Amino acid sequence: MSAPGSALHPDAVAVLDRELSDRGCEALLVVAASSRDADLAPFVGSVHLGSSFLVLPRSSARSSGNHSLPRLGFLTPMERGEAARTGLALLPPGELDVDRWLRERPQPARFWGAVLTRALELAGVPAGRLALAGHLGAGHAVGLAADLAAAGYALTDGHEVVRLLRKHKRPHEIEGIRHAAVGTVAAFRHVARLLARSEPAADGSLAADGRPVTVGLLREQVFRVLADHGLEQPEGNIIAPAEEGALPHSIGTDERVLRAGESLVVDLFPRGRLFADCTRTFCVGRPPERLARAHALVLEALEHARAGALPGVRGWSLQEETCRILGDAGFPTPISHPGTERGYVHNLGHGVGHELHEYPSFRKEAGAEGVLQEGDVITLEPGLYEPEEGWGLRFEDLLVLGPDGVAEDLTPLPYDLDSRAW
Amino acid sequence: MSAPGSALHPDAVAVLDRELSDRGCEALLVVAASSRDADLAPFVGSVHLGSSFLVLPRSSARSSGNHSLPRLGFLTPMERGEAARTGLALLPPGELDVDRWLRERPQPARFWGAVLTRALELAGVPAGRLALAGHLGAGHAVGLAADLAAAGYALTDGHEVVRLLRKHKRPHEIEGIRHAAVGTVAAFRHVARLLARSEPAADGSLAADGRPVTVGLLREQVFRVLADHGLEQPEGNIIAPAEEGALPHSIGTDERVLRAGESLVVDLFPRGRLFADCTRTFCVGRPPERLARAHALVLEALEHARAGALPGVRGWSLQEETCRILGDAGFPTPISHPGTERGYVHNLGHGVGHELHEYPSFRKEAGAEGVLQEGDVITLEPGLYEPEEGWGLRFEDLLVLGPDGVAEDLTPLPYDLDSRAW
Repeated sequence: MSAPGSALHPDAVAVLDRELSDRGCEALLVVAASSRDADLAPFVGSVHLGSSFLVLPRSSARSSGNHSLPRLGFLTPMERGEAARTGLALLPPGELDVDRWLRERPQPARFWGAVLTRALELAGVPAGRLALAGHLGAGHAVGLAADLAAAGYALTDGHEVVRLLRKHKRPHEIEGIRHAAVGTVAAFRHVARLLARSEPAADGSLAADGRPVTVGLLREQVFRVLADHGLEQPEGNIIAPAEEGALPHSIGTDERVLRAGESLVVDLFPRGRLFADCTRTFCVGRPPERLARAHALVLEALEHARAGALPGVRGWSLQEETCRILGDAGFPTPISHPGTERGYVHNLGHGVGHELHEYPSFRKEAGAEGVLQEGDVITLEPGLYEPEEGWGLRFEDLLVLGPDGVAEDLTPLPYDLDSRAW
Repeated sequence: MSAPGSALHPDAVAVLDRELSDRGCEALLVVAASSRDADLAPFVGSVHLGSSFLVLPRSSARSSGNHSLPRLGFLTPMERGEAARTGLALLPPGELDVDRWLRERPQPARFWGAVLTRALELAGVPAGRLALAGHLGAGHAVGLAADLAAAGYALTDGHEVVRLLRKHKRPHEIEGIRHAAVGTVAAFRHVARLLARSEPAADGSLAADGRPVTVGLLREQVFRVLADHGLEQPEGNIIAPAEEGALPHSIGTDERVLRAGESLVVDLFPRGRLFADCTRTFCVGRPPERLARAHALVLEALEHARAGALPGVRGWSLQEETCRILGDAGFPTPISHPGTERGYVHNLGHGVGHELHEYPSFRKEAGAEGVLQEGDVITLEPGLYEPEEGWGLRFEDLLVLGPDGVAEDLTPLPYDLDSRAW
């Protein structure tokens, strides 16, 4: 929402004020061990800071005199240049009395408590409730909350406020997701090439380049391609053949040798500055008839969902449509059979950004956060699973919802099971 | 401390009981978004779990009947197999009523509050104080603390308890650090080879393989070598030439072209399952006289520190010795000139493990956590810095303190400034 050098976007200010008012909070407080924190990064961009925090007072508080701005606090003087790059008003270590607290209150929770109390005074935030987000040790968070309580500030869970602020992606955030998506696409192409040149032995097990094709081998190659693009996999990945791919959350076993004629679900969700997320399903050799039919059906559902993913539409409506298509074809779905472990067993998609799963939500219960809007980045990922038959199939695209209902596909890849067609 | 398949080590149980008693706590509670959490991993080993937690009651609580063990809670039934691999007593999602709380209390903090309240009941932990560690969103931690308070449990900061438990490394933990160290050594060798074949242009700027040698180029190569070893750099790295290396916390600017005759500090601290940490300083071409003298002095200090790093010795005593050696040679030190920004400006070392910086501590104020013991993994990293002269120099070794005072060097690398001698 905020690019380095810019203040908070007016739309974001409106969301912030509404959410803080609804919660009776005077300010949003974001605490972080580094500027890569998923709750802090949206406000500070791509700068490099260690332990740091942000105080975002409500407008009514902001308008009371000279305490007019979100303020970024940092803890070591040498980070001043980096902090200044954000364009935010700063709370530098000198003003926060960091040296004094390091000496007098070296325990992390007590140190944070003292620094934040001082910061809230400096930012002119009146005593009252605060919404807290960001990530620290859980014990430190609880400890600093006790210190802030003694200073008259009652901390409440503020992650939801940040999640709402993060829903709409600004151009530099879309660029961050695009960068991760480019590496993801390269990794899929690499996997597809390896599978395309693999050959089954008499027992069906696959080999390429003179060695068995295992889940671990693919995982190693994916790791390297992503690394070449500067991407890491903090949440891992899924490379799940046959019976493993039939359980949508099985990540796949490294030692497992792939075989001809079985499904292989590959779901990659690496992070650079931001995350990307994409899934393809492969089958080397002739797919079983049921898998081939599922392939056609899931593609139909995906195409339908992509056509319907327009600003103003609820994610849940798209899920209902997907359930209708796959249900009409005879598969159980979460709507027809809540809790089903075969057929279509999960939700259709989610937002992607600073966290792998963020808003918009595709849940039935979602309010405004369940409505697609221009600037949202979403996945659409219909799938079918048959644990008893030992196969799973999922395709997942990553889309930016643009103006005039035109979505951009950030992971343009073929859908063929046979990677020789890629 | 606990290997998969084993219960808590008796030494760890003693530390846990003492620390919980000292704090008036009934149990240690560790909450985590994944089993890679630095506070959870020491107890569960290399299993793959998503959101999970550990309840470690004090012995007095443990001895009261059948609630006899640390318990591992996990939140999705399909993780049962992974959870069982830890050898710990389990709190499975069914017993925790996870489905019910997901339905009735979907907000993360409320969900965690309900799950943990149930877990503490099941584990027979009496109402009272609990020590909290692990990592969640800060707002979620504060929110779940409010729910637990309503159930009679007062949460306090428990990270220090875990830090004390983590100090002594068990063999499988040392193997994890060794794995990260092997990749780190390979990355240094790669950097040394690149520098060894680089040539200065007329203006002193270095080129190799037909392109300028920049900090960014080295960073890219380091990233790839580490990736080849399955290592990531969640805390980044330091590749800092001349004036940048003169500020010990400058990470170095990617665009900076290296030059002959200047210092280059390379400090790598990647993570596999656990962290490693190592620093070398290079100089292509003839080093300035002051840098060459600093090199000899710092090596003398490092050798002295390595000889003195024996079980039973305080880290602070080694720091005092280092200050004596470097101070006698005419450089300011943190003891002779507190807060100095030239000369020797930092502490001598730190423990390394699940976090980059852990116990033993080398601080003057440290108690038992400042005493080296067999099984500690430590760095020793003397350095000298002259911002006005534009150079910095640091060498850092990573050592396991073994029996009989024999330390194993996990980062055996040359100390030559000239990498052609490597």
